[in-house]
Amino acid sequence: MREDDHVTLDQVRLEAILDAVEREDQHRLAELLEPLHGADIADLLEQISPAERRGLLTLWSGHMDGETLSEIDESIREEVIEFLPREVLAEAVRELDSDDVVDILEDLEEPQQEIILDALEDADRVAVEQALAYPEYSAGRLMQRETVVAPQDWTVGQTIDFLRQEEWLPAQFYHVILVDPRMRPVGHVSLGRMLAARRDVRLNDITEDGFRTIRATEEESEVAYLFNQYHLISAPVVDENDRLVGVITIDDAMNVLDEEHEEDILRLAGVSEESSLADGVLETVRQRLPWLVVNLFTASLSAVVISMFEDTISALVALAALMPIVASTGGIGGTQSLAVAVRALATRSLTSSNAGRVVRRELLTGILNGTGLAIILGLAGTLIFGDPMLGIVLGLAMVANQMVAALGGALVPLTLNRLGFDPALASGTFVTTLTDVMGFFAFLGLATILLL
Amino acid sequence: MREDDHVTLDQVRLEAILDAVEREDQHRLAELLEPLHGADIADLLEQISPAERRGLLTLWSGHMDGETLSEIDESIREEVIEFLPREVLAEAVRELDSDDVVDILEDLEEPQQEIILDALEDADRVAVEQALAYPEYSAGRLMQRETVVAPQDWTVGQTIDFLRQEEWLPAQFYHVILVDPRMRPVGHVSLGRMLAARRDVRLNDITEDGFRTIRATEEESEVAYLFNQYHLISAPVVDENDRLVGVITIDDAMNVLDEEHEEDILRLAGVSEESSLADGVLETVRQRLPWLVVNLFTASLSAVVISMFEDTISALVALAALMPIVASTGGIGGTQSLAVAVRALATRSLTSSNAGRVVRRELLTGILNGTGLAIILGLAGTLIFGDPMLGIVLGLAMVANQMVAALGGALVPLTLNRLGFDPALASGTFVTTLTDVMGFFAFLGLATILLL
Repeated sequence: MREDDHVTLDQVRLEAILDAVEREDQHRLAELLEPLHGADIADLLEQISPAERRGLLTLWSGHMDGETLSEIDESIREEVIEFLPREVLAEAVRELDSDDVVDILEDLEEPQQEIILDALEDADRVAVEQALAYPEYSAGRLMQRETVVAPQDWTVGQTIDFLRQEEWLPAQFYHVILVDPRMRPVGHVSLGRMLAARRDVRLNDITEDGFRTIRATEEESEVAYLFNQYHLISAPVVDENDRLVGVITIDDAMNVLDEEHEEDILRLAGVSEESSLADGVLETVRQRLPWLVVNLFTASLSAVVISMFEDTISALVALAALMPIVASTGGIGGTQSLAVAVRALATRSLTSSNAGRVVRRELLTGILNGTGLAIILGLAGTLIFGDPMLGIVLGLAMVANQMVAALGGALVPLTLNRLGFDPALASGTFVTTLTDVMGFFAFLGLATILLL
Repeated sequence: MREDDHVTLDQVRLEAILDAVEREDQHRLAELLEPLHGADIADLLEQISPAERRGLLTLWSGHMDGETLSEIDESIREEVIEFLPREVLAEAVRELDSDDVVDILEDLEEPQQEIILDALEDADRVAVEQALAYPEYSAGRLMQRETVVAPQDWTVGQTIDFLRQEEWLPAQFYHVILVDPRMRPVGHVSLGRMLAARRDVRLNDITEDGFRTIRATEEESEVAYLFNQYHLISAPVVDENDRLVGVITIDDAMNVLDEEHEEDILRLAGVSEESSLADGVLETVRQRLPWLVVNLFTASLSAVVISMFEDTISALVALAALMPIVASTGGIGGTQSLAVAVRALATRSLTSSNAGRVVRRELLTGILNGTGLAIILGLAGTLIFGDPMLGIVLGLAMVANQMVAALGGALVPLTLNRLGFDPALASGTFVTTLTDVMGFFAFLGLATILLL
């Protein structure tokens, strides 16, 4: 079966699905949805309008399986679960590994949580409740409790025989974890190496290099970093006594990495939380208005600075038209420097060991960029207004503001990071306020001294 | 071994390393570097200054292994390779899988490429050259040529016996790929399922659901999407005749995903290419100055708009101080809407099926946010300046600009995407130009009509 044979959610199918929903053709709808991957059905539910979603779920909710359920975006998860008959929901969650159940439960209200917990078998419910006892965004929430372990003195043959007898194994596992008699992980063997070894080889002799365990209380962003940095595929999770409590696999880490990126890009832009295209208008306003109000106050600083120079502007009103050029170019310069610093902090390439050098580089870059812009703008100002002094004022203000922009872009996230905040948080607002204020001040100040 | 036992690159070790470099203490340096993971040594090389890097490499380059080499950031890769004795380089690349060799070669100049190709054994060189024949950023470049295959009629027992005899197996593999007699992949079996099955079970009966192949010419961003969307761990790569030519594993896909995110965040901020903290000042200027110059011209549009209203400003110079508030808040609103749209396009949650609804939502959000801000700013303007009409002008301009901001933030990336460009590319510059121009125009225009 080639990729082309896979049914994907293209425009044609989407329209056929919406058509079936409108005609309330349950049979046709099931026929169209059945060949789709759960992830695509989940995307579909997120993309269609609330009314279409209700229509689709009314006709189809009996077919919801665990895979699709676990793929559904949290912004519409509660709404979808409302539509599921209790026994369908129970059946769906029973199919899932414990980490997926935890992921679904986390964002639900109490009554819905109860329904799902009741649906689980006793052992699974205990596992899920234990996971929920770990802090949010911790490795303990991310891990699956289902592990494949072997005593460290076993041979390959013993292990294979054991796996063949085992009734139940996780859907995906990549290592057999070796444990000591107190259930502390001491190494792991990749399945590839185990398959390639003779039956009498001892597991202990073929363990993988670079074995790492992760504390259940570790933050999930740290987990994502470790997987990405050390190319881990799976890693055992241990409690405070170093005993094995679960395992995290790379697909979970990839998911966290993706979410962290989303957070970075949205926070830099001043969107205060996870947003989704399925969010309604009021929800979207709630996510965005707070930072706009903050910006309203920071922007007032610029107004105060400008009003200090009202006499200058009255005397030479062309200044009012030119001042946004200096401020706006400063904003872009600051944003550039900021994006590089935030990204470098996220990947941990910016550390205290090179912060000083990076800040110096930014400063020099700002001076050179400012000089380049100053030459263009200064010449243009001179030619257009026939006043070389105006050109000089524009040029000098530009250099000063690019310096401040480059420095601010690096220092603001570094400072936030040092203080224990997310460096992406609202950095954009701080830096553009800085460059606006500095841009207006330098330009109007120099104009007052040199032109009047 | 617990995570705590792992030696990491902390500040103490870093300083000890730099100290050893300064004292040219080769023995101590090797002792300090030896326990570090290759990824950490690569980070170290990127973080220290060029002079320190030269010193370290002079003392230590004989110890460079393949793993460390493949981790080194491309911004300093050429520089590092210059330092390696030819036989060390040869030894290092021989350790690597073909995809890692290709990754190193891609960014090197001809003479360095030759040295590395010469170092490879014949079979490896052919494999690498074949991979290089695929377009840049394609699945063919990303895949490793080393695959583990079995005829589709084999049993588990036959396969395990074959793997045990095989001298050489890839460092990491997660599936055995079933092929037909013409080497076309027809399914794959996870190693976990194979280990759990009895020897007489046929591979064909335990293949994994959701098997997908990827064309060698597919773009790597599409590959990353497929892995992320369908939770793939590895996927066979096929040529135009559907014959197996390699395999891509999740760690490569994770890497691509991470690079795509970096590109998005930098492009949104107007940094034109891959940047690294190891880049020098001139390189950094080259990456950033072009967009600053573009912004210089777009910002001049604002200047033109303002200069149209010089008479109005002369008559009421307080307007000059207030106009940046409307423009700046518009810039933030546009950036918010933009970040959400760019991210949604990257994850493919924003498609032609919901674009219309999203644009309508943005428009309504803009109106509501604008109204909220208008009330605050309008009241403040009235109270501070004692002129209700000025408050009304400020409020109306704010609503108009937030509408434009929200619409522009969604429509600019959607349009770029429709035209086949990267939606993140320079969207920021377009949108802030739009909100600046609109902010100044609406405010000064309304002031001209209502206040004079």
